[in-house]
Amino acid sequence: MSTTLKAEKLLTIRFSEVDSMNVVWHGTYPLYLEDAREYFGALYGLDYMTIYNNGYFAPIVELNIKYHKPLRYGMLPKVVITYRPTEAAKIVFDYEIIDTTTNEKTLTATSVQIFTDKNQILMWDNPTFYTEWKKAHNLI
Amino acid sequence: MSTTLKAEKLLTIRFSEVDSMNVVWHGTYPLYLEDAREYFGALYGLDYMTIYNNGYFAPIVELNIKYHKPLRYGMLPKVVITYRPTEAAKIVFDYEIIDTTTNEKTLTATSVQIFTDKNQILMWDNPTFYTEWKKAHNLI
Amino acid sequence: MSTTLKAEKLLTIRFSEVDSMNVVWHGTYPLYLEDAREYFGALYGLDYMTIYNNGYFAPIVELNIKYHKPLRYGMLPKVVITYRPTEAAKIVFDYEIIDTTTNEKTLTATSVQIFTDKNQILMWDNPTFYTEWKKAHNLI
Amino acid sequence: MSTTLKAEKLLTIRFSEVDSMNVVWHGTYPLYLEDAREYFGALYGLDYMTIYNNGYFAPIVELNIKYHKPLRYGMLPKVVITYRPTEAAKIVFDYEIIDTTTNEKTLTATSVQIFTDKNQILMWDNPTFYTEWKKAHNLI
Repeated sequence: MSTTLKAEKLLTIRFSEVDSMNVVWHGTYPLYLEDAREYFGALYGLDYMTIYNNGYFAPIVELNIKYHKPLRYGMLPKVVITYRPTEAAKIVFDYEIIDTTTNEKTLTATSVQIFTDKNQILMWDNPTFYTEWKKAHNLI
Repeated sequence: MSTTLKAEKLLTIRFSEVDSMNVVWHGTYPLYLEDAREYFGALYGLDYMTIYNNGYFAPIVELNIKYHKPLRYGMLPKVVITYRPTEAAKIVFDYEIIDTTTNEKTLTATSVQIFTDKNQILMWDNPTFYTEWKKAHNLI
Repeated sequence: MSTTLKAEKLLTIRFSEVDSMNVVWHGTYPLYLEDAREYFGALYGLDYMTIYNNGYFAPIVELNIKYHKPLRYGMLPKVVITYRPTEAAKIVFDYEIIDTTTNEKTLTATSVQIFTDKNQILMWDNPTFYTEWKKAHNLI
Repeated sequence: MSTTLKAEKLLTIRFSEVDSMNVVWHGTYPLYLEDAREYFGALYGLDYMTIYNNGYFAPIVELNIKYHKPLRYGMLPKVVITYRPTEAAKIVFDYEIIDTTTNEKTLTATSVQIFTDKNQILMWDNPTFYTEWKKAHNLI
């Protein structure tokens, strides 16, 4: 039975992340999404260190971002990150960045990660630890 | 009559762009793509300063990246950037990163930019300077 | 009567801040120090926005860093930032980064900021708002 | 007989390196200095890969920067990097960033690197390869 997992991470916009248009530079967002992913990972036990200690890397192979509205210094955004269940040996996340003052959606994104071993060889099948993680969270 | 414009930008991989997996961190690539875009802009007269001096910003509203193979410190990649003709008031680029040693494609990406005025209000129609730029390069 | 002001900011080490030696890249630290400075500013009313709203910028004119020990992913460091009183029209901060697990000092640093007006012209004298800020905090 | 070695590296200012004051963000400069250091290293055989292949790391232990004037997008700066001879088991560089249009000095800096083995244990003595490098370049 499939449900889903979600987490919300508040962002602090750094002065250095704002460009000369006074908005967060578009290339900063992969960092924000990674912050959310690591936050999710820490919450549910799927962070880099856990993956690494199980013998794997989980590199990003796809990243799709739609920028709806700019973020400015002083705004209080949050990233809502949602795990998208999949049977493939992949980790798929959907993201929304919300301006918590206006409740407007400023960005949506999706990332796809695959698994490799420590020699960076692609794993075609779900690693055992990942299958067990999915079971433990009622995702399969 | 529609043709297209293309440019090739060699990349230097900075030590700081490589992560602890010894590969270029996935969040570095928007920077590489921007480097290519600025290089294209300088070559064909469509850089940030030109756009700005005509009274506009051209923020990124969409960025889609597929990571095929990692880049490592010491490799000699190039970005091939191609202008994709469109009737909309948008700038669309396709990118390929090629490892020049093996000729392998390591990444493909697409970016979409729209136009805003200096108050960051969206322009629904093609700015005159942009239409003229397209004409001058036989893109419309 | 001169006392001093201090703040402590916990750091989260981002995966992307770690280089291929598995330690935080040395060029990441100006960001950590800025985080601490902004945290101090928010706490005591001397952040970028306050300075800006009073009509000034406060650019960094000097930054000195001594790196004692590396930081690694997963460590729990904090920045201790201390305001150093000065009669000059400057903001001087001293920083220590402490590994909270071992209590070891991993880095010490000092930054100096001056004041400019909005046209980026140097202010030789203390801005009124800054003198009042110092008085309000018993720093002069 | 002691002389010295010098190199000059032209910089391209990236749009993303400029902050909302329209000047290069102060925390960008360690990257520029590293670019110069790597350029020097490639020129004279003292780059990261050479050091690494000899069995060592050369982490930065001290970085001192004085910011004299801001850099803006579109300016054409260069870094002049000079090797400062020392008997200690250290690599010391002095840097000047020059605006090539006005010939003004915009920044001066100094970095100090030490040597560690691959386990990141400090080397108190000059590594043999480094002593030979100094001899080969008439620096000792």
